[in-house]
Amino acid sequence: MPDLLARRRALLGPNVSTFYDDPIHVVRGDGVWLWDAAGNRYLDCYNNVPHVGHCNPRVVQAITTQAAKLNTHSRYLYEGILDYVERLTGTFDDPLTTAILTCTGSEANDIALRMAEAMTGKRGIIATDATYHGNTTLVSQLSTSNPPEVGFGLDGYVRHVEAPDSYRLHDPDGQRFAEKVQEAIDALNASGVGFAALIVCPLFLNEGFPRQAEGWLRPAAEAARRAGGLLICDEVQAGFGRCGSHFWGHQKQGVIPDVVTMGKPMGNGHPVAGLVTTPEIMARFRSSFRYFNTFGGNPVSCAAAMAVLEELEDKSLQANAARIGKLAVERLDTLAQKYSVIGDTRQSGMVFGAEFVLDRTSKEPASAYADRVVNAMRHQGILLPNLGRQKNPLKTRPPMPFAEAHLDLLIDTLDRVMAETPVQA
Amino acid sequence: MPDLLARRRALLGPNVSTFYDDPIHVVRGDGVWLWDAAGNRYLDCYNNVPHVGHCNPRVVQAITTQAAKLNTHSRYLYEGILDYVERLTGTFDDPLTTAILTCTGSEANDIALRMAEAMTGKRGIIATDATYHGNTTLVSQLSTSNPPEVGFGLDGYVRHVEAPDSYRLHDPDGQRFAEKVQEAIDALNASGVGFAALIVCPLFLNEGFPRQAEGWLRPAAEAARRAGGLLICDEVQAGFGRCGSHFWGHQKQGVIPDVVTMGKPMGNGHPVAGLVTTPEIMARFRSSFRYFNTFGGNPVSCAAAMAVLEELEDKSLQANAARIGKLAVERLDTLAQKYSVIGDTRQSGMVFGAEFVLDRTSKEPASAYADRVVNAMRHQGILLPNLGRQKNPLKTRPPMPFAEAHLDLLIDTLDRVMAETPVQA
Repeated sequence: MPDLLARRRALLGPNVSTFYDDPIHVVRGDGVWLWDAAGNRYLDCYNNVPHVGHCNPRVVQAITTQAAKLNTHSRYLYEGILDYVERLTGTFDDPLTTAILTCTGSEANDIALRMAEAMTGKRGIIATDATYHGNTTLVSQLSTSNPPEVGFGLDGYVRHVEAPDSYRLHDPDGQRFAEKVQEAIDALNASGVGFAALIVCPLFLNEGFPRQAEGWLRPAAEAARRAGGLLICDEVQAGFGRCGSHFWGHQKQGVIPDVVTMGKPMGNGHPVAGLVTTPEIMARFRSSFRYFNTFGGNPVSCAAAMAVLEELEDKSLQANAARIGKLAVERLDTLAQKYSVIGDTRQSGMVFGAEFVLDRTSKEPASAYADRVVNAMRHQGILLPNLGRQKNPLKTRPPMPFAEAHLDLLIDTLDRVMAETPVQA
Repeated sequence: MPDLLARRRALLGPNVSTFYDDPIHVVRGDGVWLWDAAGNRYLDCYNNVPHVGHCNPRVVQAITTQAAKLNTHSRYLYEGILDYVERLTGTFDDPLTTAILTCTGSEANDIALRMAEAMTGKRGIIATDATYHGNTTLVSQLSTSNPPEVGFGLDGYVRHVEAPDSYRLHDPDGQRFAEKVQEAIDALNASGVGFAALIVCPLFLNEGFPRQAEGWLRPAAEAARRAGGLLICDEVQAGFGRCGSHFWGHQKQGVIPDVVTMGKPMGNGHPVAGLVTTPEIMARFRSSFRYFNTFGGNPVSCAAAMAVLEELEDKSLQANAARIGKLAVERLDTLAQKYSVIGDTRQSGMVFGAEFVLDRTSKEPASAYADRVVNAMRHQGILLPNLGRQKNPLKTRPPMPFAEAHLDLLIDTLDRVMAETPVQA
C-alpha cells in the first residue's frame, strides 16, 4: 500500500485525494460488493456510478458485443444513438425531446451554461453555496468548496445562494429559497452581468439531501423564468430512478427544466453523459455553435447506456429504490432512539442517511465524529462517505440493486460501530 | 436513409453535421474496413480514432476482461492507472513524468490552459488561425472556423497567428512562424492580458500537415519560453506513433513541451484522454485546483489504453506508419505527373495527401474539386476527407495497420476517380 501511494504521488502528482485514512486497494467488483487485494469484501454503500451494480453482466455484454462490431463517431449514421436518445427522451415530459451526448457530466454542464448564454444573451449563473457541477474551467467556478484559484476570470459570472437545509432552515414550501434566488437575480441585473440560468441538483444531493415536499423547487423555478433565465437541472446524481418516486429528480420537484444534464450512472461507469433540452434551445445552440464531440454518443457508449435503461426496467430498480429508502429511514430512526448523536434522518429513495450532531438543540455538526464513523465502517467492510457542507451527514448512495439484506448489514454494523465510537474523541 | 436523417434531426437537433453528400449508414468495422447497412465495404482512409484498427481484438478483449472484473474511480487505489501512466510517461523525455487522465482531448486541453494560467498568472493564449483544439467553453474559443458566438467573453484571451503552409509561405526553418508568435506575445503584453501559452498541434495536422524540417518548431518554442509562457503540444491527432519517425509529434519537432495533451487514438475509440506534464507544473495545478474526473483513468479506460500501447509495439505500427507514408508520397507524386490539379504532395508518416489547385502557378485552391473527389471516392468505397483551411488538401489519416495493399487500392481508385472528375464542374 505505501508503495502504491508513492507510485501514485510520483505518477499522478500531489494532492490527488483518496477515500479513507487507510485507502482501499480495490481489485474486483460484483453487484453491491467490492473486494480488496487482501481478499476482504466490502458492501458498497457509496458508489452511484455503478448504478445497476458493479460489473453488471448485461452492461458488460452490451459493451463487449458493440465494441467487437462497430465503434465510431456520429458524423456517420448509425441507429444506436437514435434508439437510445428516443428511449431516453421518452422518460421526460414535453417539450424535452432532443439530446446531446457527451462523455462526462462536466461536459454536459459546460454546454448547458452556453445554451443559457445563447438563449438569454446574458452570462450570470446562480448555484447553491454547497454544490459541485463538474470540472471544466467554466463549470468548476460553480463550486464553493475548493474554489479554483485559476479560471480565466469566470468567477465573476457566478452568484451563490444559500443551500436548502431542511434540518436547520425553515422553508417548507421553497419560498425562502426562491427569495434568495430572486435576490441573486437582482444583484446580477444590477451589476450589469445579467441573469442567464439557475443550475441546481433538483434534490440537492451534494447539499445534504434535504427533506422537501413535492413541488418544493417550483417557486425558485418560477422566479428564474420570470426573470427570463433558464432552469438547468443537473441530474448527474439524482437521475435514472434513484429518488424512487420518479425517474428524474425534477419530476419529484414538480418542475420542467429547460435543460437537464446527466452523467455518472448513465453508462454504469462507461464514460457517457449528456443533456436533454427543448427543440427551441437546441436549435439556438446549434446555430450559434458547431458542437461536435468525437467520443460523444459513439455506438459502444450508447449500447452501455441502453443496457442501463433496460436493466433498470427489467429489475424494477426504481421501485426498489423507493422501498429501500423508506425502510432505511425506519431503521435509522430506531438507531436515533439509541444514539442522541443522530440529529436527523432523511431519504430520497436510494439516497439516505443520518445527520450527526453534538447536541440536538444547538444542532452543532459532529463532523469529526462522522469522519471517525466512516473510517471505522470501512474497517468493518462497509463503504460510506460523509458529505455535505459540514461533512457531518452520513450519506448512503449505493448501487440500485441494494436490497433489504444489504440494508440490514449496513444498519447492524453501524449500530456496532456507533456503540464503540465515542462522540468526543 | 431519409428516415434515419429525419429521426436524427428530431432527436439530435439541426446542424449536426454528417460526412458526405450521401451520408453512410455504418453497421460494422474491422481493421481498416467499414461496412454499411447494404453490405458495401469501405476502406477507411480517414479515421484516426480506431488507431490500431476498428474493433481491434486485443482492445476489445482488454475492455471486456476489465469491465467484468472492476470499474471504479481513482479515489480508490488500483494498479491499472499507475501501470498505464508509467508506461505512457516512459515514451516522453524528462521532465515529462506525470499525468492526468480525462475522458476527452477537450478536457485535457481545458486543463492545460488552466495550468498555463496557474504557472504564469496570465491568460493570453496563442493558437494558429486554422486549428481546432476541442469543444469546452474555453477551448472552443481557440478555433477560427465556426467561431462560437457564445463563450462567456473568453475570446478576449485568444490571439491567432498565421498557420504554417509549406506550399505557399516560405519558412524553411520556422523563423517566420516564430516572428508571428512573438508579435502576438507583444500584442498580448501590450493589451494587459499577458501571455500564458502557445498551443499547437506539433505537426499542424489540422492546418494541412505542412512539410517541415525536423526542429522547425524550435524557434517558436524558444520565443514562448523567453516570454515566460508555456508551450502546450496538442498530440490528439499527431501522437502515438502516427508520424512514423517518432512516437510523438513534438519529438520530431525537436522540442520538449511543458504540457502534452492527447486523446482520440489513445483508447482506440474508448473515451480516454489526458495530459502529461512536469512535476513542477502538476504540483502548481494540484495546489491551485482540486481537480477530479469521475470517469478519468478508470480501470477499463486504462486497460483499453494499455492495449493500444501494446498493440502498437507488438505490431511495429510506428515503423509501418513511416514506411507507408514514404510509399504514399511516391505514389501520389506519380499521380501528380498525370494530373496537374495536384499541386503538392506531403506526408507525416500515416498522415499523407495531396493538395488540389486550379493552377500550379497561382496555387488557387481547388476546393470544390476536392469536395467532388471525396464524394466520388465514397461511392467507390474509399473514405477520405478534405480538410485544411480551404478544404482543398486531400488528407489521408487511416488506422495505423493500413498496409501497402490498402495504399494500392486507395491510389488506384483515386486515379480512376480523378480521371472521371472534371476540375471545373
